[in-house]
Amino acid sequence: MAERITPRAENYSQWYVDIILQAKLADYSPVKGSMVIRPRGYALWEKIRQTLDTMFKETGHSNAYFPLLIPESFMHKEAEHVEGFSPELAVVTHGGGEKLEEPLVIRPTSETIIWSMYKKWIQSYRDLPLLINQWANVVRWEKRTRLFLRTAEFLWQEGHTAHATEAEAIEETLRILMVYKKAAEEFMALPVLSGKKSAAEKFAGAVETYAIEAMMQDKKALQAGTSHNLGQNFAKAFDVTFQTRTGDLDHVWATSWGVSTRLIGALIMAHSDDKGLILPPRIAPTELVIIPIFRNTNKAEVLNYAHRLHKELSKGFSVAIDADDQNTPGWKFAEWELQGVPIRIEVGPRDLENQQAVLVRRDSGEKLSVPAAGIAEACAKLLEDIQNTLFHRALSFRKANTHEPADYAEFKELMAGEGGFLECGWCGNPQCEAVIKEETKATIRVLPLGRNQLENRRCIHCGEPAKELAVFARAY
Amino acid sequence: MAERITPRAENYSQWYVDIILQAKLADYSPVKGSMVIRPRGYALWEKIRQTLDTMFKETGHSNAYFPLLIPESFMHKEAEHVEGFSPELAVVTHGGGEKLEEPLVIRPTSETIIWSMYKKWIQSYRDLPLLINQWANVVRWEKRTRLFLRTAEFLWQEGHTAHATEAEAIEETLRILMVYKKAAEEFMALPVLSGKKSAAEKFAGAVETYAIEAMMQDKKALQAGTSHNLGQNFAKAFDVTFQTRTGDLDHVWATSWGVSTRLIGALIMAHSDDKGLILPPRIAPTELVIIPIFRNTNKAEVLNYAHRLHKELSKGFSVAIDADDQNTPGWKFAEWELQGVPIRIEVGPRDLENQQAVLVRRDSGEKLSVPAAGIAEACAKLLEDIQNTLFHRALSFRKANTHEPADYAEFKELMAGEGGFLECGWCGNPQCEAVIKEETKATIRVLPLGRNQLENRRCIHCGEPAKELAVFARAY
Repeated sequence: MAERITPRAENYSQWYVDIILQAKLADYSPVKGSMVIRPRGYALWEKIRQTLDTMFKETGHSNAYFPLLIPESFMHKEAEHVEGFSPELAVVTHGGGEKLEEPLVIRPTSETIIWSMYKKWIQSYRDLPLLINQWANVVRWEKRTRLFLRTAEFLWQEGHTAHATEAEAIEETLRILMVYKKAAEEFMALPVLSGKKSAAEKFAGAVETYAIEAMMQDKKALQAGTSHNLGQNFAKAFDVTFQTRTGDLDHVWATSWGVSTRLIGALIMAHSDDKGLILPPRIAPTELVIIPIFRNTNKAEVLNYAHRLHKELSKGFSVAIDADDQNTPGWKFAEWELQGVPIRIEVGPRDLENQQAVLVRRDSGEKLSVPAAGIAEACAKLLEDIQNTLFHRALSFRKANTHEPADYAEFKELMAGEGGFLECGWCGNPQCEAVIKEETKATIRVLPLGRNQLENRRCIHCGEPAKELAVFARAY
Repeated sequence: MAERITPRAENYSQWYVDIILQAKLADYSPVKGSMVIRPRGYALWEKIRQTLDTMFKETGHSNAYFPLLIPESFMHKEAEHVEGFSPELAVVTHGGGEKLEEPLVIRPTSETIIWSMYKKWIQSYRDLPLLINQWANVVRWEKRTRLFLRTAEFLWQEGHTAHATEAEAIEETLRILMVYKKAAEEFMALPVLSGKKSAAEKFAGAVETYAIEAMMQDKKALQAGTSHNLGQNFAKAFDVTFQTRTGDLDHVWATSWGVSTRLIGALIMAHSDDKGLILPPRIAPTELVIIPIFRNTNKAEVLNYAHRLHKELSKGFSVAIDADDQNTPGWKFAEWELQGVPIRIEVGPRDLENQQAVLVRRDSGEKLSVPAAGIAEACAKLLEDIQNTLFHRALSFRKANTHEPADYAEFKELMAGEGGFLECGWCGNPQCEAVIKEETKATIRVLPLGRNQLENRRCIHCGEPAKELAVFARAY
């Protein structure tokens, strides 16, 4: 804790790493590119996992578990898929002391192994829809890694569904996109744009990829979740057909979708400040921390009062008490601020005397004295307010940093300068997209849903009539 | 469902596999030795996981996540550990299209990678105890595999704790053993013997291994969980020292402990019958199933009544309703019996007339008419009764099949014939243990805790004075 967090203004990347290491969310591992998720980081993942798992079950999905190791030949069955994932594969060549007849790859994603099983399980329209999710680890051999955002191994969930019609598959793809948006916005206080990806940015093997994208405090975009309409690509690659209601034989329609521990990186980068982590209350493993402030002369009474409040608040909240007498109150304030606990409750002799406590908001530092009798209600209200404040703060930031450049010169100037999200017309030509990326490092993050009014826009690059509204940004 | 389950009396192994495949708990995967855990099987794992996770947190443990891939050299740092696990390793030699400088092994267990991190995290007695658990997949290259019981990849939890004193480490080892026993007995209705393993059966790298052992319906033993006192073995291998309260430097004391998806195999083999799965209510994902029985003439009324009961029962139970009119009631009875749902609720026109329902126990087939007004209470009571009955049935079975052979001739006769658990004196000599294993295939399952009265017993093999009471059995 004694270490200093590099301020954002000084070095944003270092600020991010400092928070992770000092708040003990994660650590570097001895295996290059892999990370260790420490208990405080994993507690965030547990919260995200619970939130999403409930939402998946409410929408009719069940969890299952498919093997980690996939025969290498499976990866070759879908042409785009192998091209997209081959460069990132970790390959097992030996098992039990012997060379394997066929090498196995560690799953970078599980479409291939899952569709090889779906072939066994699906015969008739009565077997559909098949709505399965799995919580698992995957490995993608990345050259440049960054804690939580891009690691060789990461934890995620991957949904894989099978449907009788294209319409149902599209509906599922969009249903899950909305589940992701809701989880991001309502639980993680992370406003996101949702929309379709351009062909250049879509998943290897998908017909269409949809994504949610969030803006970080350095104005770069972070893709926080993707939902793919796979069409019949994997059903054809693995020959999965079913008997339709009318007795015909058809290939099955598919979707897949996932979010990962990358969301923890988004959470950190969207809300935190130079003192450390700031956690939205609904995701915070610890919502409140009580810090008794005492001298030797009044220690027993103050502690007694603090423990009484702790007992009272424990009924409805996840609440810690830091009654250690090795550290000063100032040290404790800094330590719990670093950890991002939404509300600190200070309890001193004067508070005891007046039967009150001081609530301090992590997001703003604002202080509020409340009577002990109404402390639970006050905390509940304040937590709700912090949750909303964080969301609206991030939303205002995104709005303030979203621009509509008039021409490509202004586009380049913005990207060379303040950055942000740039809303522009796009002719739909991958060539224009590629040149923009080459010249400015900005990519199309989404073609936003429900924003089809092109209002006579023209392509920001070539000036031809626009076919799409596109949001460009540099991205993690 | 139309397929027949092989009766236990005909072929116990096939009966086990038939239940798993027909109840859709799991399936064989295209990768030799790996299995797919299907949604109904995974739902059991989710229940077991929730139960244990709560118990771990109540005893002060936090979850974390360590990397899947471990540098091969780490495995060599603890002499017994490498000898025990080397033959079972899966080895990654290539990543991202290139040959790796050092091969990586897929974790068969995580002591080595975790202790390499504990070296960074532990400096002082103030950093102890460190109480971490992880839920993860592991790979052990097994030659002969069996669904759930022994598969190349399996899911498990592995706890890894670090302590300042040997006494604390021993206390932790036994605390967790009791957590496992409680989870097995109170939730899974699985009576277990708990005790120490002989040196021949202990974990590679442990000072002492403790285990819980259950008896299956074929009278073989199944090791259902292990808890290891690792002494200072891993701390020494990874040079993890700490400053003690008195300012000295000492190596840290350690434990590790785990249970796996093998527990699902135990659950199936301990309770089920020739009709299919029988699930203890506290582990059953679906506790009740309502089956309306109707003709065309009274369909609407009966369904209406069934849905009313469903709504009422949904308030307190996990309850399904099978109102499909494609299948006959008889077909549905068999299907839900196969799935092991503890109580079937039959609702026909006469039940509607009398405002009642018929509850049918899965464990005994016993029927009970109850008034609709008191159905929730009746179900709660009956579920509790089924839970207890399953436990006591398994306990009586174990007692009836536990013998105390008078001499080695009787020991051999029992093992060649009816099998079961054999309680005997043992001199403590690994040679006697090895000969017994060679000649009878029986191994020492545990040296039971709290059963130290040797009562002048002699070693069942050599006749020397016994140093231990041992329970021998053939095991999975």
